[in-house]
Amino acid sequence: MKKVGVAILGLGVVGGGTYKILTEHREFYKKIHGIDISVVSVLERKKERATALGLDVSKIASDISEICNNPEVKIVVEVMGGVEPAKTFVLAALNSGKSVVTSNKELFCKYSHELEKAAKSNGCGLFYEASCVGGVPVIRTLIDNLQGNKIMSMMGIINGTTNYILTKMASEGVSYKDVLKEAQKLGYAEADPTADVEGFDAAYKLSILSSLAFHTKIPHTKVYREGIKDVDLLDLKYGNRFGYTLKLLAIGKNSENGIEVRVHPAFVQNSHPLASVNDSYNAVYITGDSVEDVMLYGRGAGALPTGSAIVGDIIYCATHDNFNYSTFENNEDADPSIKFITNFESAYFMRFDAEDKPGVLSIVSSILGKHGISVAQVNQENEKKGGTVPLILITHETYEENVKKAVEEINGGKVAKVVSVVRVVT
Amino acid sequence: MKKVGVAILGLGVVGGGTYKILTEHREFYKKIHGIDISVVSVLERKKERATALGLDVSKIASDISEICNNPEVKIVVEVMGGVEPAKTFVLAALNSGKSVVTSNKELFCKYSHELEKAAKSNGCGLFYEASCVGGVPVIRTLIDNLQGNKIMSMMGIINGTTNYILTKMASEGVSYKDVLKEAQKLGYAEADPTADVEGFDAAYKLSILSSLAFHTKIPHTKVYREGIKDVDLLDLKYGNRFGYTLKLLAIGKNSENGIEVRVHPAFVQNSHPLASVNDSYNAVYITGDSVEDVMLYGRGAGALPTGSAIVGDIIYCATHDNFNYSTFENNEDADPSIKFITNFESAYFMRFDAEDKPGVLSIVSSILGKHGISVAQVNQENEKKGGTVPLILITHETYEENVKKAVEEINGGKVAKVVSVVRVVT
Repeated sequence: MKKVGVAILGLGVVGGGTYKILTEHREFYKKIHGIDISVVSVLERKKERATALGLDVSKIASDISEICNNPEVKIVVEVMGGVEPAKTFVLAALNSGKSVVTSNKELFCKYSHELEKAAKSNGCGLFYEASCVGGVPVIRTLIDNLQGNKIMSMMGIINGTTNYILTKMASEGVSYKDVLKEAQKLGYAEADPTADVEGFDAAYKLSILSSLAFHTKIPHTKVYREGIKDVDLLDLKYGNRFGYTLKLLAIGKNSENGIEVRVHPAFVQNSHPLASVNDSYNAVYITGDSVEDVMLYGRGAGALPTGSAIVGDIIYCATHDNFNYSTFENNEDADPSIKFITNFESAYFMRFDAEDKPGVLSIVSSILGKHGISVAQVNQENEKKGGTVPLILITHETYEENVKKAVEEINGGKVAKVVSVVRVVT
Repeated sequence: MKKVGVAILGLGVVGGGTYKILTEHREFYKKIHGIDISVVSVLERKKERATALGLDVSKIASDISEICNNPEVKIVVEVMGGVEPAKTFVLAALNSGKSVVTSNKELFCKYSHELEKAAKSNGCGLFYEASCVGGVPVIRTLIDNLQGNKIMSMMGIINGTTNYILTKMASEGVSYKDVLKEAQKLGYAEADPTADVEGFDAAYKLSILSSLAFHTKIPHTKVYREGIKDVDLLDLKYGNRFGYTLKLLAIGKNSENGIEVRVHPAFVQNSHPLASVNDSYNAVYITGDSVEDVMLYGRGAGALPTGSAIVGDIIYCATHDNFNYSTFENNEDADPSIKFITNFESAYFMRFDAEDKPGVLSIVSSILGKHGISVAQVNQENEKKGGTVPLILITHETYEENVKKAVEEINGGKVAKVVSVVRVVT
């Protein structure tokens, strides 16, 4: 029986989950896949993490070179996160002829070309399903299933922490700050939540997914990014009256005019499949020219779901002889021939504090009209507060820049002040 | 550049869609995948189908042997449907060293072992993503992504025609017969709708999917099957009051006690992701021991979505040198060591015509209790009709056989007659 030795770099949440899956399923994989996969080495400074997993401390390598020089190791699993020392270690493994499976979105997003070049020149595999959306099979699907499509767009809820926070805010009417505190207590959010709540994590993933979908390197620096820190409970409430749910969406679109990639809060209609993706669940909704719409849904994080993606890659690597690589000849720069669209087209939800007197709607909608924005729905709430009432408009599709100009003009007048502007997916 | 000649057997809906995708994307595939894929031959008796696609009639082969002997043909696409002559043609192609991509669920479900044996012994690939759930990437996901999991269960809406009918019945309050007539007029249902509405189509697909998920051949003859012909509008209405939506579900479960596979109408809670899978959309909800829950959603049929799955397989086949096969050494018989569970465990929706007098609920629930069935919710509707009123119960989980015995005993008495029993997914 073919023996496949695995080394795991980092025994944190995902490394531990991967170790657990591989160990508990060893006999199952022998029976089903005809291969004997075992963890033969780990790199982890905290010895107690290894012993807590029941791992023999003799398997703890003293450094990466010990793993690179170990002939039993066929596949190196990198689950350390961050760029360094992960990058140095992954390159060392590839250059020693080991295939690599990684969950490291930041590393792969920033250095895919350099890593794939090393993998290719050494005849090794480089797999990264676990880098995006945990257990959701989106990378394999893009590479080996939808690869006959021209992908027109993808919309994803690809960060579990922010989706948990927005779901709680909506269902329990609790403010962003309070839900964040609770999420941190429960371990659903980091002590420093910046990467999640400001959309960096989603932007890295969108960079990887849209590069695959659109067949050109989309650097994360090209992703327009807005987080959820300023999401106001009142907007969730008013949006709900129009049948909308607020999500942090990662959106990639590809058309003849160019490519647009953006991460920001957006309203989706309650009837859209993405609207019911709640709590820490994630989903990616992909539209291709042949397949039409496909949605992939599941656990976007967690020890075992992410471990499932890693182990899927390990078995794939162990049972295939030839590996595919993307063909992007760049790391952090985009192909100069690609045009990135920044003046997005979207519908908008606009909330105003308006003077409580007749004619205000006429003035506001006249200014909007002047900037090419037509109004689809209006709601004038009867909730007076300090002399003003809330006025809520949903616009038809228009351009981001038109909205900015209209907001400026309305705020410059006296009858209404813009409180919130939220993009609406149509 | 690598040239890949494709022959298509059958230019019906899916064959035509596949031809269209391959032809229109030829330059795109050269650029992106570095291969030149072209349709070099077709087998189709109706010449007008070829000419309608703009296909040169010189490419119409006179018989299968012409295709088998054509050295330009590397991949044969079988989209004829039915067992014969498809089986003979597929075996001939494999035995001539051609890889095969098929959308034929009945053929693959009934003869997977024979076909895979021929593929393996000839070093050819045999691909069948399009045989199940159209453009939804469920087969590749099971083989190359979730293969490190022990799959515990799958629940699918895997027949578009029945989902269209049930969605229409629920949203418009129209009877089964009337919606079916309309669906036939629109081409969403066949003139003879038996295969769809009686669940045969779903049973074939469940056979293939559960064989892959549970790593043992699950013959379609082991699938318990009930169609949607007897679905009563009133049950949809009353179910809705409990927050349920009715779907034709294909369910596969694997536990230490054995395997159960069944296709039947069932209520799912409105908050379950499957409840919002409407119209002709399909979805498969898979639960694995590591990945937890994954749902794959999309178009389960249609020329281009199914063509997308076929073309995905063609490109995969053209870009991989080694192919995997399942290991089931049987076609239509199950491994004798597998125990199939037929006394399903489920919750139930039960509707009675009950006498309109006090004490009826007590009698009915006492009989249920005697058979080990406990009641979770009750609804006594105030809708008198011919001396009786509707009484609706939702039970906790119990066994199918208990329900049958209780129904018999209740129907043998005078106070209530059972009108409908519908399984409820909990």
